[in-house]
Amino acid sequence: LPHPAFISMESLSKKETMALREKHIGKSCQLFFREDPLKITRAKAQYMYDERGDAYLDCINNVAHVGHCHPAVVQAGCQQMSVLNTNNRFLHDNIVLCARRIISTMPDKLSVCYFVNSGSEANDLALRLAQIHTGNKDMITLEHAYHGHLTSLIDISHYKFNLPGGPPQKDHVHVASCPDIYGGKYRDCDHTKEELSKLYSNEIKNICAKVKEEKGEGICAFIAESLLSCGGQVIPPESYLKDVYDDVRAAGGVCIADEVQVGFGRLGKQWWGFQLHDVVPDIVTMGKPMGNGHPVAAVVTTEEIAD
Amino acid sequence: LPHPAFISMESLSKKETMALREKHIGKSCQLFFREDPLKITRAKAQYMYDERGDAYLDCINNVAHVGHCHPAVVQAGCQQMSVLNTNNRFLHDNIVLCARRIISTMPDKLSVCYFVNSGSEANDLALRLAQIHTGNKDMITLEHAYHGHLTSLIDISHYKFNLPGGPPQKDHVHVASCPDIYGGKYRDCDHTKEELSKLYSNEIKNICAKVKEEKGEGICAFIAESLLSCGGQVIPPESYLKDVYDDVRAAGGVCIADEVQVGFGRLGKQWWGFQLHDVVPDIVTMGKPMGNGHPVAAVVTTEEIAD
Repeated sequence: LPHPAFISMESLSKKETMALREKHIGKSCQLFFREDPLKITRAKAQYMYDERGDAYLDCINNVAHVGHCHPAVVQAGCQQMSVLNTNNRFLHDNIVLCARRIISTMPDKLSVCYFVNSGSEANDLALRLAQIHTGNKDMITLEHAYHGHLTSLIDISHYKFNLPGGPPQKDHVHVASCPDIYGGKYRDCDHTKEELSKLYSNEIKNICAKVKEEKGEGICAFIAESLLSCGGQVIPPESYLKDVYDDVRAAGGVCIADEVQVGFGRLGKQWWGFQLHDVVPDIVTMGKPMGNGHPVAAVVTTEEIAD
Repeated sequence: LPHPAFISMESLSKKETMALREKHIGKSCQLFFREDPLKITRAKAQYMYDERGDAYLDCINNVAHVGHCHPAVVQAGCQQMSVLNTNNRFLHDNIVLCARRIISTMPDKLSVCYFVNSGSEANDLALRLAQIHTGNKDMITLEHAYHGHLTSLIDISHYKFNLPGGPPQKDHVHVASCPDIYGGKYRDCDHTKEELSKLYSNEIKNICAKVKEEKGEGICAFIAESLLSCGGQVIPPESYLKDVYDDVRAAGGVCIADEVQVGFGRLGKQWWGFQLHDVVPDIVTMGKPMGNGHPVAAVVTTEEIAD
């Protein structure tokens, strides 16, 4: 590999970097640590290093799944870039082997894979698959949820449209309470676990009934992280997802598990968050940790929905 | 670099690759040459090579801008991957230097850059910037246009929603004729060039007037490739874009130049297609050739719109 100096087109002082960023990068691209932002020049395993070589233990990064610049990942990436780097309109072994490997971690009925560039693209595709498959429009999403930064996803991300000055909630979007038994609407100091599960899942049942009554229509989809990451690392009560999946399916909808942040074994015991709840989604989306920083993401679904 | 065998997790016969693709990759991901699709295993400069080593002169690829696996691009990519590969929430020299370099090819007022993962993400962001800046919703787009595969872009891509079984045209989307003077609605065998420019641009003027009259509202944006690539490599008549940009701005809208396929010097004389028409867009989107296959894209706009 060439000397690291190769990559820096020019070396700037931190002040110059900040001035140029201020001038040429959109302000909505926010920096961590706004008061005195870090200038990170390299990273390895669990550490990031600033321009003076000071090391930072990285506890906030959500992409470096197997450690920054893991040699096996870098080697695979470099190798593929130097051999072939194009769209997927040609046959290639790696795309099908990668699909098979991902699918081998999933329940049988989830057997069809689509590759895209980001978790946002994955969730957007999931919504379109759900709409085409069900013919319905109404979406059920959770309070504080974040599913991506595209137009269609800001519409269903309570975390986004709930902001001051944000777009108004769309007519086809329904928000249920976050099933947070510690700080949520119903808490474990007041209810048993069985009650909590029912209290939270009943909100979804009620939304389904309301849509049926008011619009005469079924539900398109319920989308949720299997463990609510953006909403505060919330673990839903046992049997909550099971009840919700049953109710949504009874209302004609499909269930989308957003595993973009929490998937790929991040929860420890299983490959995917939904496996901790003993449910099988109709569509699973994945992204961030998949490429360890490289923009790659995927949607996995059933043959029935894919066709 | 490791031996090329490293990258192939397993070696499959073409038949096995096809069978696995059939089973695990969504059918909407179409292959080139459906009858007997090519299995491409590597590529270099202008050639692609199949599993038997047969070379193909690549005249259809739209990403390998400076030739497949250009050594300088591969080296830069490998180097960056091995040093730092994370989100843009930290200060880094390359992101600001790259922004400055892109902006240095543009007219002065286009000075703010956003980096995203794909041309589709770029166009989706451009639409949101336009909506927030103008407060309007109505979009003007051209016949046969393609601006990406996300929900918001399928809505404005006549090439997509015009398909049998496709979604219906949305109420806020208005389609003007493709300014094709050879095979379009008005042709150069019947009209002078000045007439053609007016005939085509008048359609846009009429849409603006109609929206004003019927909804009492202004236009959000006009989006077009500066040379219509997906619509058949159509060069609009001289002064067409100038007239259109004037009319759209008079109606309160912004002008978006989609340079995802045609930008980065692909048209020969200038860096950007809009420069051939002597106009200055309010928002420019770019993608495909930017990373020579690596998923990277950008939106460039004015300070006024970015803030």
